[in-house]
Amino acid sequence: MLTNPRADRVKSVRALSRRSVRSRTGEFLAEGPQAVREAVRFAPDDVRDVYVTPEAAERHTDIVDAARARRLWVHEVTPEVLAAMCDADHPQGLAAVCRWAGPDLDAALAALPPDAIVCVLTNVRDPGNAGTVIRGADAAGADLVVVSDASVDVRSPKVVRSTVGSLWHLPVVTDVPIPTILEALRARGIRLLAADGSGQTLLPDADLQGAHAWVMGNEAWGLAPEVREACDEVIRVPIHGHAESLNLAMAATLCLYASAEARHRQR
Amino acid sequence: MLTNPRADRVKSVRALSRRSVRSRTGEFLAEGPQAVREAVRFAPDDVRDVYVTPEAAERHTDIVDAARARRLWVHEVTPEVLAAMCDADHPQGLAAVCRWAGPDLDAALAALPPDAIVCVLTNVRDPGNAGTVIRGADAAGADLVVVSDASVDVRSPKVVRSTVGSLWHLPVVTDVPIPTILEALRARGIRLLAADGSGQTLLPDADLQGAHAWVMGNEAWGLAPEVREACDEVIRVPIHGHAESLNLAMAATLCLYASAEARHRQR
Repeated sequence: MLTNPRADRVKSVRALSRRSVRSRTGEFLAEGPQAVREAVRFAPDDVRDVYVTPEAAERHTDIVDAARARRLWVHEVTPEVLAAMCDADHPQGLAAVCRWAGPDLDAALAALPPDAIVCVLTNVRDPGNAGTVIRGADAAGADLVVVSDASVDVRSPKVVRSTVGSLWHLPVVTDVPIPTILEALRARGIRLLAADGSGQTLLPDADLQGAHAWVMGNEAWGLAPEVREACDEVIRVPIHGHAESLNLAMAATLCLYASAEARHRQR
Repeated sequence: MLTNPRADRVKSVRALSRRSVRSRTGEFLAEGPQAVREAVRFAPDDVRDVYVTPEAAERHTDIVDAARARRLWVHEVTPEVLAAMCDADHPQGLAAVCRWAGPDLDAALAALPPDAIVCVLTNVRDPGNAGTVIRGADAAGADLVVVSDASVDVRSPKVVRSTVGSLWHLPVVTDVPIPTILEALRARGIRLLAADGSGQTLLPDADLQGAHAWVMGNEAWGLAPEVREACDEVIRVPIHGHAESLNLAMAATLCLYASAEARHRQR
């Protein structure tokens, strides 16, 4: 049982809340039962250490048993130690140090089905938005999320929390410049659909057959003109009332679900 | 120019961040240019006082001019005074004290079109979720939002902020017990559709013709069984990937946009 909140090991886990430390170590922290459960279930090879309080170990025997069955290190810690490790106010007794093993872009593209649905995030800055888009992409059955290099770090505690485990459910490629992303998708024959309020085509009228990628921009200022122009089509979610816009996560979810529905009808 | 952050007037505005004060006074605070602009534009009779810093008055002449044209009180304040009034970290130089003039349920129902789209929120507790649902309802062209009495106060600063002005765009009825809401809707011939993961009907297969209301539950535990059973149909947003669920705002937006699309095809 780890009992000292000021121990070096505790400090080194807590340091993973800093982007520079995550970059240097290639590790990040999954906080809370949902995130730890999905990490253990979907990517056990990437889980380095599981930390659990005695109370959480009793409540979440499924997670602890699954971790032990996969021969992962499971460490009992006091609630004070866990609180000192975590960024979350209420980590609910569980956290896991994970390696970041997102695939590289070429490998991820090579694994796509012929009717792939891809979500590309460019210059997304809000952690909650980024995480919610990844969760929505997972729910819509998207095959890949690609996050451009000028975006929020998807391994940051807030993004990881707001994905609610989806970070481990589908491949997420990060840190690629947006021109490289668009070129690589195009080279694979994947149509590029810009989601943007300036689009002439309304979402319900869009042709969503075949492999395509939704290219989503920044929360506040949308897509950069050069990115929009590099896409094959610009598509707009209709606004029926007086709202000026939808937020990024809602727009992305509507687009990705429209794709899912088109694919479902086709298959 | 108001310059004293400790003046009684400043304190009484700041007190509106407390639910008890909002209930007693019937007033609440709109913070930031977007909220103030929409309040002045869509509900000038409900705006009691506009507070603006000199810098914001220069930047947002449209808002200040519109407020003065409607003979509203516009008070210049220092940035320190505005900060002392507001709950937001960055109110961006503008705030307005507004009266709450949501219609009562019967009046709101009487004003609905024959193919009305209604959104009912029960036991919703997270302010960001509630506000984002109202924004999504606005964008989808919904005709009415009804919030049950056991929910977050939609006049709280966080909800108001996350509606990004939509609070003034469509009628929002609050503080009605859920059985009363369901009875009143039913008496008007409005079909009740529970949005719930237990539904047998998938959203793309749902019949969304004619007047109907989406009944949405709590973020964590969904709809209470008695509410679900009181509805005419239980409808589920399909989950194609490994995600356990969507968040409330995403699920509500998908349902309301499906309704909007059905109405658009019918009209």
